[in-house]
Amino acid sequence: MSEHRDILQRVADGELTVEEALRQLGGGREYDLGFAKADLSRPKRCGISEVIYAAGKTPEQVVDIAEALHRDGSAVMATRVTEAHFEAVRIRYPNAVHYKIAHIITIPGHKPIEPVGRVAVVAAGTSDLPVAEEAAITVEFLGGRVDRITDVGVAGVHRLVNRIDDIRKARVVIAVAGMEGALPSVLGGLIDRPLIALPTSVGYGMHLNGLAAFLAMLNSCAPGITVVNVDNGFGAGVAATLINRLA
Amino acid sequence: MSEHRDILQRVADGELTVEEALRQLGGGREYDLGFAKADLSRPKRCGISEVIYAAGKTPEQVVDIAEALHRDGSAVMATRVTEAHFEAVRIRYPNAVHYKIAHIITIPGHKPIEPVGRVAVVAAGTSDLPVAEEAAITVEFLGGRVDRITDVGVAGVHRLVNRIDDIRKARVVIAVAGMEGALPSVLGGLIDRPLIALPTSVGYGMHLNGLAAFLAMLNSCAPGITVVNVDNGFGAGVAATLINRLA
Amino acid sequence: MSEHRDILQRVADGELTVEEALRQLGGGREYDLGFAKADLSRPKRCGISEVIYAAGKTPEQVVDIAEALHRDGSAVMATRVTEAHFEAVRIRYPNAVHYKIAHIITIPGHKPIEPVGRVAVVAAGTSDLPVAEEAAITVEFLGGRVDRITDVGVAGVHRLVNRIDDIRKARVVIAVAGMEGALPSVLGGLIDRPLIALPTSVGYGMHLNGLAAFLAMLNSCAPGITVVNVDNGFGAGVAATLINRLA
Amino acid sequence: MSEHRDILQRVADGELTVEEALRQLGGGREYDLGFAKADLSRPKRCGISEVIYAAGKTPEQVVDIAEALHRDGSAVMATRVTEAHFEAVRIRYPNAVHYKIAHIITIPGHKPIEPVGRVAVVAAGTSDLPVAEEAAITVEFLGGRVDRITDVGVAGVHRLVNRIDDIRKARVVIAVAGMEGALPSVLGGLIDRPLIALPTSVGYGMHLNGLAAFLAMLNSCAPGITVVNVDNGFGAGVAATLINRLA
Amino acid sequence: MSEHRDILQRVADGELTVEEALRQLGGGREYDLGFAKADLSRPKRCGISEVIYAAGKTPEQVVDIAEALHRDGSAVMATRVTEAHFEAVRIRYPNAVHYKIAHIITIPGHKPIEPVGRVAVVAAGTSDLPVAEEAAITVEFLGGRVDRITDVGVAGVHRLVNRIDDIRKARVVIAVAGMEGALPSVLGGLIDRPLIALPTSVGYGMHLNGLAAFLAMLNSCAPGITVVNVDNGFGAGVAATLINRLA
Amino acid sequence: MSEHRDILQRVADGELTVEEALRQLGGGREYDLGFAKADLSRPKRCGISEVIYAAGKTPEQVVDIAEALHRDGSAVMATRVTEAHFEAVRIRYPNAVHYKIAHIITIPGHKPIEPVGRVAVVAAGTSDLPVAEEAAITVEFLGGRVDRITDVGVAGVHRLVNRIDDIRKARVVIAVAGMEGALPSVLGGLIDRPLIALPTSVGYGMHLNGLAAFLAMLNSCAPGITVVNVDNGFGAGVAATLINRLA
Amino acid sequence: MSEHRDILQRVADGELTVEEALRQLGGGREYDLGFAKADLSRPKRCGISEVIYAAGKTPEQVVDIAEALHRDGSAVMATRVTEAHFEAVRIRYPNAVHYKIAHIITIPGHKPIEPVGRVAVVAAGTSDLPVAEEAAITVEFLGGRVDRITDVGVAGVHRLVNRIDDIRKARVVIAVAGMEGALPSVLGGLIDRPLIALPTSVGYGMHLNGLAAFLAMLNSCAPGITVVNVDNGFGAGVAATLINRLA
Amino acid sequence: MSEHRDILQRVADGELTVEEALRQLGGGREYDLGFAKADLSRPKRCGISEVIYAAGKTPEQVVDIAEALHRDGSAVMATRVTEAHFEAVRIRYPNAVHYKIAHIITIPGHKPIEPVGRVAVVAAGTSDLPVAEEAAITVEFLGGRVDRITDVGVAGVHRLVNRIDDIRKARVVIAVAGMEGALPSVLGGLIDRPLIALPTSVGYGMHLNGLAAFLAMLNSCAPGITVVNVDNGFGAGVAATLINRLA
Repeated sequence: MSEHRDILQRVADGELTVEEALRQLGGGREYDLGFAKADLSRPKRCGISEVIYAAGKTPEQVVDIAEALHRDGSAVMATRVTEAHFEAVRIRYPNAVHYKIAHIITIPGHKPIEPVGRVAVVAAGTSDLPVAEEAAITVEFLGGRVDRITDVGVAGVHRLVNRIDDIRKARVVIAVAGMEGALPSVLGGLIDRPLIALPTSVGYGMHLNGLAAFLAMLNSCAPGITVVNVDNGFGAGVAATLINRLA
Repeated sequence: MSEHRDILQRVADGELTVEEALRQLGGGREYDLGFAKADLSRPKRCGISEVIYAAGKTPEQVVDIAEALHRDGSAVMATRVTEAHFEAVRIRYPNAVHYKIAHIITIPGHKPIEPVGRVAVVAAGTSDLPVAEEAAITVEFLGGRVDRITDVGVAGVHRLVNRIDDIRKARVVIAVAGMEGALPSVLGGLIDRPLIALPTSVGYGMHLNGLAAFLAMLNSCAPGITVVNVDNGFGAGVAATLINRLA
Repeated sequence: MSEHRDILQRVADGELTVEEALRQLGGGREYDLGFAKADLSRPKRCGISEVIYAAGKTPEQVVDIAEALHRDGSAVMATRVTEAHFEAVRIRYPNAVHYKIAHIITIPGHKPIEPVGRVAVVAAGTSDLPVAEEAAITVEFLGGRVDRITDVGVAGVHRLVNRIDDIRKARVVIAVAGMEGALPSVLGGLIDRPLIALPTSVGYGMHLNGLAAFLAMLNSCAPGITVVNVDNGFGAGVAATLINRLA
Repeated sequence: MSEHRDILQRVADGELTVEEALRQLGGGREYDLGFAKADLSRPKRCGISEVIYAAGKTPEQVVDIAEALHRDGSAVMATRVTEAHFEAVRIRYPNAVHYKIAHIITIPGHKPIEPVGRVAVVAAGTSDLPVAEEAAITVEFLGGRVDRITDVGVAGVHRLVNRIDDIRKARVVIAVAGMEGALPSVLGGLIDRPLIALPTSVGYGMHLNGLAAFLAMLNSCAPGITVVNVDNGFGAGVAATLINRLA
Repeated sequence: MSEHRDILQRVADGELTVEEALRQLGGGREYDLGFAKADLSRPKRCGISEVIYAAGKTPEQVVDIAEALHRDGSAVMATRVTEAHFEAVRIRYPNAVHYKIAHIITIPGHKPIEPVGRVAVVAAGTSDLPVAEEAAITVEFLGGRVDRITDVGVAGVHRLVNRIDDIRKARVVIAVAGMEGALPSVLGGLIDRPLIALPTSVGYGMHLNGLAAFLAMLNSCAPGITVVNVDNGFGAGVAATLINRLA
Repeated sequence: MSEHRDILQRVADGELTVEEALRQLGGGREYDLGFAKADLSRPKRCGISEVIYAAGKTPEQVVDIAEALHRDGSAVMATRVTEAHFEAVRIRYPNAVHYKIAHIITIPGHKPIEPVGRVAVVAAGTSDLPVAEEAAITVEFLGGRVDRITDVGVAGVHRLVNRIDDIRKARVVIAVAGMEGALPSVLGGLIDRPLIALPTSVGYGMHLNGLAAFLAMLNSCAPGITVVNVDNGFGAGVAATLINRLA
Repeated sequence: MSEHRDILQRVADGELTVEEALRQLGGGREYDLGFAKADLSRPKRCGISEVIYAAGKTPEQVVDIAEALHRDGSAVMATRVTEAHFEAVRIRYPNAVHYKIAHIITIPGHKPIEPVGRVAVVAAGTSDLPVAEEAAITVEFLGGRVDRITDVGVAGVHRLVNRIDDIRKARVVIAVAGMEGALPSVLGGLIDRPLIALPTSVGYGMHLNGLAAFLAMLNSCAPGITVVNVDNGFGAGVAATLINRLA
Repeated sequence: MSEHRDILQRVADGELTVEEALRQLGGGREYDLGFAKADLSRPKRCGISEVIYAAGKTPEQVVDIAEALHRDGSAVMATRVTEAHFEAVRIRYPNAVHYKIAHIITIPGHKPIEPVGRVAVVAAGTSDLPVAEEAAITVEFLGGRVDRITDVGVAGVHRLVNRIDDIRKARVVIAVAGMEGALPSVLGGLIDRPLIALPTSVGYGMHLNGLAAFLAMLNSCAPGITVVNVDNGFGAGVAATLINRLA
């Protein structure tokens, strides 16, 4: 309520009109696009700028939202993009980058970012890579440094042990796995860092679209593991970023 | 149908009456207890004598069935027993043995059994011991030799690696785990023996009575693992025995 | 593998016998209690000492494990304790403390701990307090400072907004809620800190033992939220601690 | 049974033949289309005329049913229409209107309707708009006035608070949300009007086709909220209309 | 935000100090009971005073909360009470009333209430009565008039038709049913009033704690039906009250 | 509507008053017990007299309903009874019979019943007997002759084949099984009679309270099998009776 | 075993060779098609000839199986056929009939069938017709007479009451409904005939592919209803036939 | 740890450098393909060479992995292949074989394999053949001899009994079934060999993608059956191979 106190004090001091105070109490700035409103005050409030979830949006809508978010020179990211989205975006932003495996587009901002910290993205199998990359590129877009450790599934546990020193250098670890989802449990017993488990829908038979991996991560015998939704690489990347930023 | 051919031939040869042949074609011997029928031809047909599932039966019923099965000198086993079951059994059979952790009673048969083969029962945590012991004692009752390896959960993967040479000596391996059920996946990548995964209902929160462990085992990234029902130590023990007996 | 390299170098240099090296490569120290093995190398490996999960253990077993863990002067914690557990523990450790709401016992270690950082535990309703306290006391036991903000459920959203400045002071936030589990979503839109959602099984009707709250948290429209298992206050406390410790 | 009494009295008085009475006791008027029967007595009985659910029907069938319902000058509405349905309908009814976002066609009746009351349709995100519009247009078709408040998801709770005075003007409120479905819980704590929660299947990962949002609404900590089926904008619109019509 | 504008204007006019304004902006009055906070501004905000959910609370806690809520002369209601709760309450409030079937206690307020409107509570079977009564007494407590129509399950549909004229007199209808939950569907085709479906957990076999009844109500072929949670008579009563109050 | 036509004709002919006709159109006779209404016209309408479901009713209530149903000399049956129910019933009806395995009480009617037809109740295991007996006694109570074939589970398929000629003598067959529920599938391939599958909740591990047996019966590869709810011996008995009665 | 006795007696009498007896004991005649075996002894054993489930089979396979089954002059039926199946069948059998709504083909047998008995197929809505027709044509193919009563859903219960006299003329009733599946419950309270409930997957929102309708039918408050699998018109038709044939 | 001891001893003896020892302790040989790593030490560790899961891989990727695995003359197998995969593979390996029903490609190795043992693959219906063949060809590829017994579903149980002598000749049995999944239960009561149950997703209505068959197998009344995932013919084949190889 400290913001509230400031506003009230300025009203009491006559520095602010009632109408203006009302607008400020009402909350953040928005940019109205007709079909959507871009929340421009989110970076200040939540530390993370708004990101475009492209699935189900037309290429034109993605370009329009990108323009609204890029208006003040901020970098822009869109997830779950198709080739068609990228075709439209790079006409408007020739320096846009398309990460094909991760299905992500980024548009650089006016100020270059110096990466900070270190996040390890550890993936069990090659089929988990698209989700792992969504997480990794999200972290990089938000200003973090990423180490990628792949193909370290638990059915060849020596592969994981071989890479454990690399993983221990990170401040935060994202463990990505489908099928039986055992990677975070094994990893959780080997490191002393915050560990985010990211289940994928990779599997077959009665895998139930990732539920098997998800439940395994949720019930890990290694304490202190947190979980995000199935295939939600973006969410894992944001969570890792908020942790990685802690001074 | 070779048995059928023998019977028919003996009928054609006049060695067998039609009525007697009919009885023999009808199948196995049974001993009628009024409230149940003991299937005395099962050992010959399936290789495994009938075992008493004591849950829901009175002490008297357990003693009665035990007598029917023991009639010809066979050893007898009852699973899921309570203290009261044992009280009743040992009055009739003073040499009966009560395995308290496994909730099992055995009554020795007239012929001592020389254990054969070697089955490893590998358990993740101390809470998994009752189910693991049900499996182990089932194997021993049915004539197998058992190695017990316990407290080798994957959150301290070095514990498992430390014992791997012991496990590799077995002909068959039963891997017992609750919670996230990752033990069989890690173990499956380290051995070349038949591996039976035995999920337990050990866990809390959204563990769904063992479903989490069960699904993980079913979806293991290590191929060739088979699974039995949750907490079904007896079933795992029978399956391991049938494999262990193969010459 | 740097540890491996050290060991091997010392073997090559003749400073270490093969047997001793073998023991060291095998992993951590354990203290064998017969019915369980205490993993004494966990603090070094994972940053968190082993904690006693008292549910299903006898008072005697809890005391025995406590003694094993306390042997080197470490503080000890047991969760999901009953009154009977505490009766037994305080005979052996008169300075043990019983947190009744959280169902936790702690035994002080030889070295006092100076609390670091700041974790906010934010609970929606009074029924969520036992789980929230399990999280809060876990954080405190592991050396963190805790702010408790309670009774700020979303059906009176002004209550939450009123306390937002207090919450923003924390380095990590744990949001605890049952029923519809909306608290983390609202909170996630108001802060820029790592946010761990802790669902509780509080609810009635088709609440499905906390599944409703859990699914809501998993599908939050506020990005970057991670989730732990239903009623798993201990797990949330460990996760928050690992984050809170980051320098 | 008052209708029954009238009929019987008229039979007793000789004003009605037995056959005619029998037909009247049998219930409402129907118009038989061969492949379906239009229930023409529904408006009198239930207050709501029959509406065409176009999904799975051919354009010709939709036109035929429309003609049966429009026969007496009533306005007609069809939901879940495709472009092809509209092509067929406007040939027959040039003044038909196609609401593309809501996937609805309406054909004006002979008597213009003066809208009554006021229903607020409050939607959390832009992806919820098709369902929200299905509800809004249903209300308008049935003679109600609608206020649309959109993009007020709880991850930016100030947006909702900003619009609360507008919402409070309504007699009934429909709250539309997918993902974690928290909007009705927050809204329910801010208003004193009947509140219908309308979950949508908007979401990803383990959202289970709207089950997450649905369960959250069903378990809201704000009392007095009622729920309709996932994506059932039409049902919510009818329910709101029946409430809005109360004098 | 009109309340906000008032406060700000009074600050600008010097009628209100910044501190006092801050407190008012913070929202409603609360009465802190130590273990809980009573939300005293809810009646003004939501039209419904706070009600005590007694399940899981001690008799003393229920009395304490009752006192806080009764402080200003308001009537008080507690749901899901036991005999022990009532024993404690009537010592403090001798005029308290215990509705045994509904498991509800009420304490009269200082001002008598003149019942308004008319709500029909229609129950399928005798086993549904406790839930139906919870709904009925909630409506009465909140100032509505109730008609009870019971034992009109659809397996004897003439019973329901017999009572339809009574039901049509109500402004709002609550239909209560367990088992196959068909009552609201049949009723919805016979009336033109808002209809709230209230599923109960009455049933056996694969009834899944009321899921069968619940799903049937949610998927009713009669449009415009809304649903509350299983056994949530209180919620249905509040929803009916908010509708019944509309002028 | 033939009944309607009669009533109307008699009104037209002046043989019936409007009030009396109204009462008759309203449907069956009921006997109001205060806490319940006994439906006395059910036997005429549905062929089956009302049966008392005793679970959750007090002994006094069971006696009261029995008296209402027995009033006109009909036989009475109560299912899911306890010892206490029987204690109360036999004071009032000394000739009442208590079937302990089936948890049923019957009170003879004034007219003895000559059993007709023949229903086979085939049960897989001894644990299925309580449910099988509930079905068998229901059939007998409703006037059918029953053959009981027990302990013919499919894991000893010769047992079933041995009894097939007995089973083929019945007009209708009820197949009762828990666990994997395979009995109806095997039986369905051996007979040409109506076959009702009755799943029981007998099983352990992930049996899901009979869901495993139930799904197996529902998906039988033998066509023409119908299913009733888990453990619903009464329902199976009624269904078999309606079939058995067909001339 | 009477068949067994005959065979044995003829062996004993020297009328049958051992090899021939063995073949006869082995069971029914089969016609091997390479990719499948037609079970030609099924009509004798089960009363129902084998029917072709065309889904997933090529047109050529359907023709081949039809030829095998038609070889002895029997009529042949194929269910779940496509247009392509019919194109292929009518080249070989010009008198084949294609029931488009039911997705069934029939090929007449050499002997005309005189229909017996009477089965009522009662359907709730027009969307339920394909499943209802599958049931109706199955009954007719197997020699039964069918009455079709459609569009009698419970949301206009007078429609059903209007047709009840027609329904009561049948020996067996099949009640077909999707959505909330209430039709069998209402119907079961109005008739005294065997009633088979046939749920359909018609519905939307959280209908779960017919689970809602299915659970409602399974939990009907009208006793004696049996259920078949969702959309399994063929199974309902076979079950009704077996009942309808009882003399 | 015997391998560890060797390595350490050779380091102590100066036969091995620290770096080389470190590499050896790290585990098996891998061949890095850029997009994946082929695990070349798996045959030695697990007895089974790595197999290509072709679903979701491009033809080029399948060829590339095949080359890596075939490099040392080993035979190679790919499962879940399409026609396009085979087109690409046979250009590179003209002697590759395409098993169309099983969706498998094999490439012969340099050394011919002499088949050992005997595995029976027993399938219930023709629709189960693709899964059964995946299992059979996996066994053959890994060096086992296979007997195929098909179309022995339990609705014609004589078919199975007819073939039982053939089945009894095998060392291991795989029982394949969809729908109600009863085959393993019946088979398990007739043989004394290890029995692997392989459920298929064959079925319709509420079959839940094979869950019905799966649950039936898991809950079999015949003890000692183990289960693999739905449609996982490959897994069943590997499990059978590991058992079949036991000397």
